[in-house]
Amino acid sequence: MSVKTIKLNMSYEPLILTTAHPFGISYGTSSTSSNILVRLQFEGLTGLGEASPTRYHDETPETASSLFKLWAESDILGDDPFAIEAVLKRLDKSVSGNRSAKAAIDMALHDLVGKLLDRSLVDIFGFRDLPVPITDFTIGIDSAETVELKTKEALAVGYKHLKVKQGTDYDREIIDTIRGLAPDIPIRVDANGAWTVKEAISKAHYLAEQNVEFIEQPLPKYAPLSDWQVLRAASPLPIYADESVSTSIDVARLAGYVDGVVVKLAKTGGLAEARRVINTARANNFKIMFGCMIESSLGITAAAHLAPLVDHLDLDGALLLADDPFEGAVYDDGYLKVDYSLPGLGVRSRKQ
Amino acid sequence: MSVKTIKLNMSYEPLILTTAHPFGISYGTSSTSSNILVRLQFEGLTGLGEASPTRYHDETPETASSLFKLWAESDILGDDPFAIEAVLKRLDKSVSGNRSAKAAIDMALHDLVGKLLDRSLVDIFGFRDLPVPITDFTIGIDSAETVELKTKEALAVGYKHLKVKQGTDYDREIIDTIRGLAPDIPIRVDANGAWTVKEAISKAHYLAEQNVEFIEQPLPKYAPLSDWQVLRAASPLPIYADESVSTSIDVARLAGYVDGVVVKLAKTGGLAEARRVINTARANNFKIMFGCMIESSLGITAAAHLAPLVDHLDLDGALLLADDPFEGAVYDDGYLKVDYSLPGLGVRSRKQ
Repeated sequence: MSVKTIKLNMSYEPLILTTAHPFGISYGTSSTSSNILVRLQFEGLTGLGEASPTRYHDETPETASSLFKLWAESDILGDDPFAIEAVLKRLDKSVSGNRSAKAAIDMALHDLVGKLLDRSLVDIFGFRDLPVPITDFTIGIDSAETVELKTKEALAVGYKHLKVKQGTDYDREIIDTIRGLAPDIPIRVDANGAWTVKEAISKAHYLAEQNVEFIEQPLPKYAPLSDWQVLRAASPLPIYADESVSTSIDVARLAGYVDGVVVKLAKTGGLAEARRVINTARANNFKIMFGCMIESSLGITAAAHLAPLVDHLDLDGALLLADDPFEGAVYDDGYLKVDYSLPGLGVRSRKQ
Repeated sequence: MSVKTIKLNMSYEPLILTTAHPFGISYGTSSTSSNILVRLQFEGLTGLGEASPTRYHDETPETASSLFKLWAESDILGDDPFAIEAVLKRLDKSVSGNRSAKAAIDMALHDLVGKLLDRSLVDIFGFRDLPVPITDFTIGIDSAETVELKTKEALAVGYKHLKVKQGTDYDREIIDTIRGLAPDIPIRVDANGAWTVKEAISKAHYLAEQNVEFIEQPLPKYAPLSDWQVLRAASPLPIYADESVSTSIDVARLAGYVDGVVVKLAKTGGLAEARRVINTARANNFKIMFGCMIESSLGITAAAHLAPLVDHLDLDGALLLADDPFEGAVYDDGYLKVDYSLPGLGVRSRKQ
C-alpha cells in the first residue's frame, strides 16, 4: 500500500533545444537554446512548465536552475495547485525578476489545475469560441543569401505573415531580398533595440515604403520615454515595445508613448501576469502581440491559450526547432491550433 | 424518456429587495431596490445572476427587463457556458452600456461553469489562500438623530469600518455625530458626486482633521479631468473615483488624476470586466475598492470572489436588507466569508 502525499512535488531538468537553422537577432546568433523543463506532481497528475531564460532578460540557464533547486527544496510552492496567485506572490516576494523561471511554475500550475478539473485551459479561462490571429514566422538575421533561402523555405511551407529581424548594417538589403520574393506578404520588423532614435526614424520611413506593418522594439530596452515620444511622433509606422515591457506596470508607464506592446510568458512570469498585461494594454488602446522565445511546443502552447486576447501572434518558437520534444499547438494554414479536448495546456511529450 | 437539450435556457424574474432602514444617498432615499434575478439552465444545473439597475448608472428595472426578454428569446447566449468572453462580446455588440443587466448574465455563466466543474470560483480563478480586506458598513444619509441611531446599531453589531454618505447641507454634523460615538473607527466618505471642486477641497480638509481615510466620488460623474487634477493636488485626503469609472478604459483615462477607483459588478458588467478593471488599476498604482449596490447575497457573493484582488471592501449591500432572499458570503467579525466548498458562486436560495 502506498501512502499518498498531498505535497506538490517539483522536479526539473535541462531541455536543450536545437534550431533547424542558426537563429540570429541583433544580440547574437545561436543554434541551441538551453531551456529547462519543470514538472509539478500532485495526486498522480503532472503539470508541465518550460523556462526559456535569456541574457537579454537578465536570466541564464544557471540562474533559473539555481532558483528551481531552491524552490524544489523549500515549501514555497505549498500544497494546493489552485492557489496559483498566492504561489506567484510568494515567488515574487522571494526574488524579483527571473520571470522565465517563474513562468515555468505558473505554466505547470495552470496545467495541473486543468488536469485536476479534466478541462482545457480554454474552458477554465472562459475563452471558448473566440477568434485568434494568424501566427507569423520569423526570418532571423543572416547573410542576404541565407535570408533568401530561408524566405523561400518559409514561403514554400505556406507561412502567411513574416517577422523580420533587423539590426545589421545591411538591414535594407534584408528587406529588399524578402520583398523581392514576396511583394505582398504582411511583414513586421523587429530590431531588438538596435537603433538610435535617428536611425529608427530613417528606417521607419523606408520600411513604410516597403509596406511593413509595424516595428518592434526599435530602441534599446532602457531608452528614456522622451526617445519613444520623439520616435512615435516622427514614425509613419506603428511602434511596439517588447524588451521595454515585462509587466503590467511597464504597460501603464508607456501609455501614450507607443502604439503597441509585445507580451511573452518569459517576460511576464507566466499566464496570470500575461493576462494582466493584456488587460492593461487593451485599456490603453494598445495593439498587442503575443511573442515567444526559442521554446518547445510546451511553452508555445501555453502562450497559445491567450491568443484570443491579442491582435498579432508571433508564436513560432517551436516551428524553428529541428526536433521539438513536445507536441501541443499544431500549425495549420496560418493558425496555431490547440487541442481543446486535452486537459490543462494540452501538451504531450513526444518521448513517451 | 426526456430528451436533453444542450441549449442554455434563460429565465428571469423581479427580485424586490427591502432595506432594514430607508437608505439615503445624495441622489435620493429609498427603502426598496427593484433588482432582477436571472437563471441560466444547462444540463440540469442552474447558474444564478442578479441585476441591480439604477438610474444614476443609466439603467432602470424596465431597461434591464426588456434586455432580458430580448436575450431570453434570441440565441445570443449560445449553447456553451464556457464561452463566457464570447457571450459577453456578443452582448456588448448588441447594446452598449446596460452593464448591470450584462453583469447578471456574467454572474450566471460563472456560476454555471463552477457548477459544471464542481468547484468554487476561487479555484477556477486560482485565488486560494489569498488574504482579503475587512468589509465596511454604510451609514446612509439621514437626519443627524437617525445617523446617531444607525451608528450605534452598527457599532453594536461590531462593524469594523464605516462608510459615510455625504452630499447634504449638514455634512459636518453627520461626521461629528459619528466621530462623537466612534472616535477611532476607520471611516471613508462617499459624496456620490455632490460637490463642486471648491466644496470638495474645503470638505477634504475638514474630513482629514476628522481622520477620514479617503473620499469617494466627490465630483460629478462627468466632471472634467482638470477638475480631478485640481482637487487631487489640493486635497489632503486620497480621492477615489466611483461613478466616473465603469470599465478598464475609464481607469486608464484617469491615470494620474485620482488615487483610487471603486469597482462594482453593476458598472463593469460582471466579473470578467471587473478583473480587467482591477488589473488596469493595479498597473496604474491605484488603490482599489470593491463596492456594490443594494443587492442580495447573490450579487454580493459574486463580488466577494474578487475580494482578494482589492484593498478595500464595501460589500454591505446584503447587510442593509430586511430580508435577504439568498444565502452566500457570511459576515464574520469584519470579514465576508465565502463557502469555498460550494461550487460556482456558492450561493443558495433561502426559499427552497
